[in-house]
Amino acid sequence: MADIQVNKTAHPFDKSRFEALLNRRFFYAPAFEIYGGVAGLYDYGPPGSSLQSNIIAEWRKHFIVEEHMLEVDTTIMTPAPVFETSGHVARFADWMVKDLKTGEVIRADHLVKNVLEARLAGDKEARGLAAAPPKEDDKKKKKKDKAKPTAVKLPDELVVEYETILAQLDNYSGPELGELCRKYDIRNPDTDNEVSEPQQFNLMFASSIGPTGQHPGFLRPETAQGHFLNFSRLLEFNNGRIPFASAQIGRSFRNEISPRAGLLRVREFTMAEIEHYVDPEDKRHERFSEVRDVELDLLDRHTQSAGSTKVTRMKIGDAVDKGVVANETLGYFLARIHQFLIKIGIDPTRLRFRQHMANEMAHYATDCWDAEIQNSYGWTECVGCADRAAYDLSVHSAKTGHPLVVRQALKEPIITEKLVAEFNKKTFGKTFGKDSAVIQNIVGGMDEALLAKLQGELAQGSTSITSSDGREFKLTPDLLTIEKKTFKQSIREFTPNVIEPSFGLGRILYALLEHSFWSREQDVERGVLSLPAVVAPTKVLIVPLSAKPEFDPLVKEVSAKLRKAGIFSRVDDSNTSIGKRYARNDELGTPYGLTLDFASVAKRTMTLRERDTTGQLIGDIDEVIGVVTELVNGTTDWAEACRRLPSYDGVQAVE
Amino acid sequence: MADIQVNKTAHPFDKSRFEALLNRRFFYAPAFEIYGGVAGLYDYGPPGSSLQSNIIAEWRKHFIVEEHMLEVDTTIMTPAPVFETSGHVARFADWMVKDLKTGEVIRADHLVKNVLEARLAGDKEARGLAAAPPKEDDKKKKKKDKAKPTAVKLPDELVVEYETILAQLDNYSGPELGELCRKYDIRNPDTDNEVSEPQQFNLMFASSIGPTGQHPGFLRPETAQGHFLNFSRLLEFNNGRIPFASAQIGRSFRNEISPRAGLLRVREFTMAEIEHYVDPEDKRHERFSEVRDVELDLLDRHTQSAGSTKVTRMKIGDAVDKGVVANETLGYFLARIHQFLIKIGIDPTRLRFRQHMANEMAHYATDCWDAEIQNSYGWTECVGCADRAAYDLSVHSAKTGHPLVVRQALKEPIITEKLVAEFNKKTFGKTFGKDSAVIQNIVGGMDEALLAKLQGELAQGSTSITSSDGREFKLTPDLLTIEKKTFKQSIREFTPNVIEPSFGLGRILYALLEHSFWSREQDVERGVLSLPAVVAPTKVLIVPLSAKPEFDPLVKEVSAKLRKAGIFSRVDDSNTSIGKRYARNDELGTPYGLTLDFASVAKRTMTLRERDTTGQLIGDIDEVIGVVTELVNGTTDWAEACRRLPSYDGVQAVE
Repeated sequence: MADIQVNKTAHPFDKSRFEALLNRRFFYAPAFEIYGGVAGLYDYGPPGSSLQSNIIAEWRKHFIVEEHMLEVDTTIMTPAPVFETSGHVARFADWMVKDLKTGEVIRADHLVKNVLEARLAGDKEARGLAAAPPKEDDKKKKKKDKAKPTAVKLPDELVVEYETILAQLDNYSGPELGELCRKYDIRNPDTDNEVSEPQQFNLMFASSIGPTGQHPGFLRPETAQGHFLNFSRLLEFNNGRIPFASAQIGRSFRNEISPRAGLLRVREFTMAEIEHYVDPEDKRHERFSEVRDVELDLLDRHTQSAGSTKVTRMKIGDAVDKGVVANETLGYFLARIHQFLIKIGIDPTRLRFRQHMANEMAHYATDCWDAEIQNSYGWTECVGCADRAAYDLSVHSAKTGHPLVVRQALKEPIITEKLVAEFNKKTFGKTFGKDSAVIQNIVGGMDEALLAKLQGELAQGSTSITSSDGREFKLTPDLLTIEKKTFKQSIREFTPNVIEPSFGLGRILYALLEHSFWSREQDVERGVLSLPAVVAPTKVLIVPLSAKPEFDPLVKEVSAKLRKAGIFSRVDDSNTSIGKRYARNDELGTPYGLTLDFASVAKRTMTLRERDTTGQLIGDIDEVIGVVTELVNGTTDWAEACRRLPSYDGVQAVE
Repeated sequence: MADIQVNKTAHPFDKSRFEALLNRRFFYAPAFEIYGGVAGLYDYGPPGSSLQSNIIAEWRKHFIVEEHMLEVDTTIMTPAPVFETSGHVARFADWMVKDLKTGEVIRADHLVKNVLEARLAGDKEARGLAAAPPKEDDKKKKKKDKAKPTAVKLPDELVVEYETILAQLDNYSGPELGELCRKYDIRNPDTDNEVSEPQQFNLMFASSIGPTGQHPGFLRPETAQGHFLNFSRLLEFNNGRIPFASAQIGRSFRNEISPRAGLLRVREFTMAEIEHYVDPEDKRHERFSEVRDVELDLLDRHTQSAGSTKVTRMKIGDAVDKGVVANETLGYFLARIHQFLIKIGIDPTRLRFRQHMANEMAHYATDCWDAEIQNSYGWTECVGCADRAAYDLSVHSAKTGHPLVVRQALKEPIITEKLVAEFNKKTFGKTFGKDSAVIQNIVGGMDEALLAKLQGELAQGSTSITSSDGREFKLTPDLLTIEKKTFKQSIREFTPNVIEPSFGLGRILYALLEHSFWSREQDVERGVLSLPAVVAPTKVLIVPLSAKPEFDPLVKEVSAKLRKAGIFSRVDDSNTSIGKRYARNDELGTPYGLTLDFASVAKRTMTLRERDTTGQLIGDIDEVIGVVTELVNGTTDWAEACRRLPSYDGVQAVE
């Protein structure tokens, strides 16, 4: 049967097999590998590049096209004053500690996390709640990792303390992390040496622009500033209307202290960022009703502060109504982010939205949620979604003097009345000569109450005012009058607030690969990447029985017809069995295979193979092309395909 | 009539109007403009970003998909040793001179070019061969540019000298440029001061990787090294077969000395590079026959060395046959580059292929041609196409010890016979003791002739050999024998050569914009960008008569149907006349407009407007969608559309 059920969890996730597959098929590899590599820098090979392009293409469709966002492409190299204003020069830093003997540099929060987690794991083992960690082979043992759990039972209170610390780890300042190290005797697990007090290390790569070296610059650590600096032009492009959003996909750089964890912590990465500009007084979203019922797993800041990481499943509509999520626009994007991640193949049961705690959030932000995806490294932030308020536009505007504001015609003008002094041009100058300006300044500086008083005194006939140097000037109604005037304001000017969904594409890509990986029940060596067709590097593999020229015309015909249908196929005519070729493409995540054999030449039939089930169907070449086109475009599914085409269990099925 | 002829050359190219349009419509703008900008850094706004994405998408189709290239995405940040090996640290530099009084830094070759061109232009004017330059307004005059021509007649010989220098400007070394400055009294035109001797300035941006600053790194000035370092993995991915190509689209950086000329000389830019790996002994190309008859304007090195810039129109097949272009693979790519540039809208009459001169070419390259596009700044290199031989793979392999080679099974093994000495293990060591190695080394170092001589002597009974320190050793047949042995070599191992087409996408984009720009004959203020549909930022503009809700259902229907047909449309319901909306979209290069009015609501008709002719057709909504889909996909043209739909000359036509 072609539509058999597939058991994808027959074997537990095996990281070494998974990593071997990614390496063997060149999804990605350490950059400069033949030079010994550099931590935190990776190159994508052909399948990794295609997967990334496809994720980006889907992102463009899901966000930019669907929401008519304005795409920009701004520079990476940025002059220092921009990041001085944005606060990155002062604050875009991590806390690092140094091993006091070897000088090794470690990120302070990672150190605390690794050591405490290892102690908790050792405690669990000692209590018989967890199995001993698998034995390592001799080679690995040589470099003993002391962060690995050793079975030591901890006092019950200490377990609670550790768990509470870990639940709010992102909330500690540098000095607080230093205190934790002292209090709990946290040392460098590789050497057992004590570590220094945490120091700040700025994460931006520095360079300088121009031949004389006098213009310091940084590589951007996010694409956002490039949007903000162009705000006026974007607003004009949008005919002066808000809300609207700008979007950008591009490379950013962070000089991480000691990057490990593969693609999850890198020094150079591709981001996709949206800056959605809204009226600070109206953060409703026109299309919120479309996503109201989308259910999300939420982990709010109160739960974390209480030391728990238990999520609450909630409709986004309810979350906004109850004030868990700050406003509709933020909620709208959380739901849209969720939809996007599910669409490209992220497992919804391993996706949660975690709210930033008070200390963790940038000081200007009003609310911030991270889409976190669970993987073998734990829960990883893959998308941030923050309400940055008016911070960025305000600081750049204040620094440059260039107004980054929206000017809106008011439906009803605002009418205000104010007392205004008017000086009699003829008599005033004649009377006071060069002192005129002194007196005008004094009167001009008066508030409403003082002007009212002066008005009253003038109505009495005369009054006098005193200058700062003590001279007295007599004022009479023929020299100046004070009257109520009406002012009409028909334009409202304001700095918009910014809601920012920010995607780390490499992290998403990595999590997606983990979620897609499994091994065939009958053979653990046969790994499969169940990537959805929408992002799979190759959608359809064409497999002629051999490279013999008799298959050439059919291969060309099928390729051309698929291309006309907008489907990107590849031909594998390599000199190996069809089964091996399919196994290779299971590893590459290719969802469909088309086999051309002698029957194809004689009777124009072709078989269609589905990757996950390995089920095969057969039919007339054009009919099969029709079905596979619908499968790739998502307008039909495999169950339906099995109803439309007879199943095939010929020799080819034996793999 | 809808299919009227359009006169695009009624007005001469007006650069200030052109630049005003690009700025007004935010194709691109100086980066960090509100901070005063930084020379050589530009941001792309929405239409510029879309145009760039579309050019990239077409490039991917034309090269990567069509030729099954292996796409990679490698890092920008590169550790210093890589560029030390590649030669960039030593040689990737420009020659700069300093103004001896102000210290201003100028690129030496640009200085020579600008000053000599200005003198030649002044000479032409003095001879009455050219009009005086247009008068500048007062504001511009204040910053007097002395490189501007002044009408001074030059001696005839000097004109010839200048022209010869300019024709081979790229061929001069730094010291030679210094000599030219002295010989022809070339000074800084802005100050009239003398300039210093040319000095080298490395164009790579430097940074350092990691928290301790001990790993110097550079931002890549090209993507190529990222391909080469991954060669082994790519070869394996391609099942060990060559020829094949890797391709990469990505950002690169060059710290230009004093960038001017807008997008043509920038410090950060997007490139698309192909590295095609071939057998050094067979540079034929499988598909060369498909492009044999493509005609190119070629400017070879001999013509330039003779002081001329006259191109020769030639079929690429003939150029390769005659040895003008070094080999088929290089020729194949020149033709494919030509086809790509024409397809996206470059004017074929302003495109030429210029061969590098001997000194200009990298020392390792065997042949190199630049696709140059003529624009208001002159002829600009937009694509380079070089045969880099085995240089890159060889140097990285030598440096790292990692073999970057192809191993091919030979169809027929190579059989060779050689004389080989075999020592009698039992007797030899016993006889010579610790001198054994000395004697074995002497014999091992003998060539075929010496071994044959030794063999003859041994056949006679005995002989002797003398060591370097003068000792003599007697050899007899029981100690060693010399015999002919047969060797079979079944694997051929070699370093492939690399043919590299390298595209500067920003330069192509700029040249394309210039070639697309013109003004309406009846109104010079009405600029149009005649971008082909394949690259136009927006393909179809939907224009409802007004933003009134009665048009909403139709707008949504037409948008949805176009989206289903794969066409990206935008709606313009802004509060201005239809004519003004079309004029704005002529500036944005939108090729087609669909107008929805009261007749659409009542009778389901819709008008279709073509940008260049402003001609309008009318028809049933679905019929018009069918026609516009074919127009955008290039399966029909406007003349054919005019035959299929009746022309419309209603009120809307009055713009």
